[in-house]
Amino acid sequence: MADGNRPAFEQEDEGGATLGPRFVASVVAALDAADGTQIRDLCAELHPADLADLIGLLNRDERRDLVALLGSLLTADVLSELDEGIRDDVLDQLDPKAVAAAISELDTDDAVYLLEDLDPEVQQEILKEVAPEDRTAVEQGLQYPEGSAGRLMQRELIAVPSYWTVGQVIDYMRETPDLPDDFYELIVVDPAYKPVGTVALSDLLRSRRAVIIEDIADTDVETIAVETDQEDVAYRFEQYGLVSAPVVDESGRLVGVIMVDDVVDIIAEEADEDIKRLGGVGDEDLSDTVVATTRYRFPWLVVNLATALLASWVISWFEGSIAQIVALAVLMPIVASMGGNAGTQSLTVAVRAIATKELTSLNSARVIWRETAVGLLNGVLFAVLMGAVAGFWFDSVPLGLVMAAAMVINMLAAGLAGVLIPVALDRLKIDPAVASSVFVTTVTDVVGFFAFLGLAALVLL
Amino acid sequence: MADGNRPAFEQEDEGGATLGPRFVASVVAALDAADGTQIRDLCAELHPADLADLIGLLNRDERRDLVALLGSLLTADVLSELDEGIRDDVLDQLDPKAVAAAISELDTDDAVYLLEDLDPEVQQEILKEVAPEDRTAVEQGLQYPEGSAGRLMQRELIAVPSYWTVGQVIDYMRETPDLPDDFYELIVVDPAYKPVGTVALSDLLRSRRAVIIEDIADTDVETIAVETDQEDVAYRFEQYGLVSAPVVDESGRLVGVIMVDDVVDIIAEEADEDIKRLGGVGDEDLSDTVVATTRYRFPWLVVNLATALLASWVISWFEGSIAQIVALAVLMPIVASMGGNAGTQSLTVAVRAIATKELTSLNSARVIWRETAVGLLNGVLFAVLMGAVAGFWFDSVPLGLVMAAAMVINMLAAGLAGVLIPVALDRLKIDPAVASSVFVTTVTDVVGFFAFLGLAALVLL
Repeated sequence: MADGNRPAFEQEDEGGATLGPRFVASVVAALDAADGTQIRDLCAELHPADLADLIGLLNRDERRDLVALLGSLLTADVLSELDEGIRDDVLDQLDPKAVAAAISELDTDDAVYLLEDLDPEVQQEILKEVAPEDRTAVEQGLQYPEGSAGRLMQRELIAVPSYWTVGQVIDYMRETPDLPDDFYELIVVDPAYKPVGTVALSDLLRSRRAVIIEDIADTDVETIAVETDQEDVAYRFEQYGLVSAPVVDESGRLVGVIMVDDVVDIIAEEADEDIKRLGGVGDEDLSDTVVATTRYRFPWLVVNLATALLASWVISWFEGSIAQIVALAVLMPIVASMGGNAGTQSLTVAVRAIATKELTSLNSARVIWRETAVGLLNGVLFAVLMGAVAGFWFDSVPLGLVMAAAMVINMLAAGLAGVLIPVALDRLKIDPAVASSVFVTTVTDVVGFFAFLGLAALVLL
Repeated sequence: MADGNRPAFEQEDEGGATLGPRFVASVVAALDAADGTQIRDLCAELHPADLADLIGLLNRDERRDLVALLGSLLTADVLSELDEGIRDDVLDQLDPKAVAAAISELDTDDAVYLLEDLDPEVQQEILKEVAPEDRTAVEQGLQYPEGSAGRLMQRELIAVPSYWTVGQVIDYMRETPDLPDDFYELIVVDPAYKPVGTVALSDLLRSRRAVIIEDIADTDVETIAVETDQEDVAYRFEQYGLVSAPVVDESGRLVGVIMVDDVVDIIAEEADEDIKRLGGVGDEDLSDTVVATTRYRFPWLVVNLATALLASWVISWFEGSIAQIVALAVLMPIVASMGGNAGTQSLTVAVRAIATKELTSLNSARVIWRETAVGLLNGVLFAVLMGAVAGFWFDSVPLGLVMAAAMVINMLAAGLAGVLIPVALDRLKIDPAVASSVFVTTVTDVVGFFAFLGLAALVLL
C-alpha cells in the first residue's frame, strides 16, 4: 500500500509532507489565469490524499474553479479523502452520474462516507445510477448509525471455508477479478458463514499448496459486533495490534471487515474530539463560516457566563469588606486563578486516564487520594509563596495569613473537584471531556472567592 | 494478526474490552492468598496486552507479587506491552538472563523499548547475554534519538531483488525460518540495497510463479529517513493510509521497516501529549507518586502565578475607583473569565489545526480574520446580555454601558490572541500546545481588567 507519490517540491518548502505554500501559490495563480492545462500538470503527480487536502486549503471560489478544471484527476479516491466540511459542497458541484461512478469504484465504507450527509433525495438520485449489488451494500451501510462498526466496515473481503487447501485459496484469488483493493488476512468461515479463524497472508504464502486452511488458521479470532461504537473499535485495534478485524451481525454471521487505515483516522478523530471538548468548542471546522462558528461557541460561553455570575454573586456578599479593604479586590483573582489552573491539571489527567481506560472503578479511590495529596502539597507551597507576597505587598501579616489559608483550601478543592467531577460524570455515562471543565472552574471560583473573602471578613474586620 | 483472546468475563463486567473489576478483584484475592496456581489459571487466557494492563492496574506490592508468581506467563510480548511508568520497575525484578531471552525473541523496536530507559550498566549486563547479531541490532537502535523513525523501526524485514520471480520469493519465504512475525509487503531493493518498490502480499498471492517481481512492484515507494520525527512518521501513515514503510539511512540504504501497529500507538501518544500540554501537565503518569506529580505540575502553576500577579497589579492601579464603586470588584471577574473562555476556544481550534497541518502560512490570514470576526460577534452578543444584567443588578445605565464596552474589547482581544499566539509560537518552532494557553489568559486577564476598570474610571468617576 506504500503508493504515496511524494512530490519533489515538498523538500524545498515548509518541511514535512504538506503541500508547500509555493506550490499552492502556483496552483492559485493557474486558477486565476483559468489555465486548465497548467492545473492538471501541477496536480497530476499528487497523491489522492494530498489533492484532497489541496482542495480543502482553497477558499470557496478557488475550490469550485479547481474542481471544474481537474477533470479526470478528480478520482473516486480523491473524493473519499475530502474533509467532511467540504465533501458535500464538492459533490454538489458534480453530476450525479459522476458521483455514482465513484460510488461503484470505492469500497463500501468510503462510498457510505461520500453519501452519508447528503439529502435523502440527492442520495436516491445518485444511487439509482449505481449497479444493484453495489447499491444494496451502500444502502445497508447507511442504515447503521454514524460512529458504529457497521459504518466503518467494508463489505469487500475474502472468506474461505476451513476445509479448502492453500492451493485452492490461491487459485480462487487468482481467478476472482473483483477482490478488495487491499487485504492482509483471509477470514475462515463455517457453513453458517460465522468467522472461526483468520489466516495472515504471510502465513498463507509460507505454506505449501496441499496444506489445509484449518491447520494454519489462527482460531483466536477477534470479531467485532456491527453495532460496536467506533471508539471501542479503535481501542481494540490499538490494544491488540490488529490490522483488520471481521465484523459480525446479531446472529454472528460475517458481514464485513474493518481495516486498520480507517481505524487510524478514528483514533486521530477521537483524540481531536476530546481536545475540542475540553477547550469548549464543538464539532467545528476551520472552513466553517463566522456565523456558524459563533453559533457553535455561544452555548458554551453562556454556560460560563452563568458560572461567572455565580462567582460574582459570592463576591457581592462581601461588598462591605471590600469597601473597607480594597486590597481584597486586588488579591482575590489570584486565589481563583491558581485554583482554576490546578483544577484543570487534575482534570486533564483524569479525563485522559478515563479515555484510555487507565482510570477505572478499581483504582479511582487511589487516584482521588493522590490528587487530594497533590492539591494539599501544592497548596502549602503556594500558600507560603503567596502569603509572603501578599503580606509584603500590603504590609499586613494577617492579610498574608488569610491569603495562605485560602490558597491551601482552594488548591485542595481544585485537586478533589478535578478528579471527582470527571469520575462522577463517567459513572453517569456523560462524556467527562464535555462538561468537566465548567464544573471544576465553578468550584474553584466559588470556593476561592468564598474562602478568601470569608476568612478576610472573619479575621481582618 | 487477529489473535486477541477476548476473555469471557469481560461481557459481564464494565463493558468494552477492559479487565473488569470483578476479574481484577479475584486476581487480588489470589495474590493475597499467595495462590500461584490460581493466579496462573486466571491469567493463562489473557492476551499479552491485557496481562500488561493488569500488571499496570495493581499497586506496587501487588505488582511485585504478581510478577513473581506469573512464571512463564510473563512472556516477552507482555514485557513489551508494559507502560513506560512500570516497565523499568518490572525489569528490575527480573533476572538479566530472563530479560536477555526476551530481547532475543522480540523485534528490534520492542527490544529497544524494553532497554531504552535502563542505566547503561544494566543495559550492558543484559546485552552481554544476547546473541551477537541481535545485540548489534539493539545497540544500533538505541543510538537513534528517542522519538525518531530509527527507534520505531524493526530490522526484521523481507527485501528481494527486482529480477526475482514470484516463485523464487515464495520459495525463499518457505525456506527461511527467521522471518519477521508479521509483514504485509515485501520491499524491492536495487543492488545497493536501496528501496525501489514494494509488493503487497495480496498482489504476490494473485500472481503466477513465473511473474518477475519488477512487473508487480509498486514503484511509488514512500521511504522514511531514519532521523524523521515520529510525529511526521505518524502523519504520513495517516495521510497515505500506509500499513508499513521502509526506513532508509543517510545514503538511502534500507535499514528497517515501520509497521502500522507501532504508528497507531504513536498517534494516540501524540494526541495525548497535546491534550496534556494544553492542560498544563507534563509527561506525568497515573502511577507517579504524589511528590513526582507535584514536581511536574509546580512549574506551570508558578508561571500562572506570575501572570495572575500581573493581572492583580493592573487591578491595583484602580484601587481608588474600586473603593468608590465596589460593584466594580464584583463584576470585573466576569469580564476576565469570559475573555479567558473565548480565548481558550480560539486557541484550541488553532492548536489542533496547526497539529493536523490544516492551518498553515497559506491560510493563516483568513483564519485570523475569522477568529477576529467571531470574537467581535460574540463580544457584541455578550455585551448586550451582560450590559443589561450589570445595569439592572446595580441599577446604573452607565455601569451597564461600561460592562458592554469592556466585553466587546476583551472578546475581540481573546479571539485575536487565541489565534495569533499559537501561530507565532509555531513560526518560532515552539510547540503551541505548551505555552499558548498561559499567554492567552494573560492577555484576556490584563485586557479585561484594564478595559473594564479603565473605562469605569473614565466614565463613572
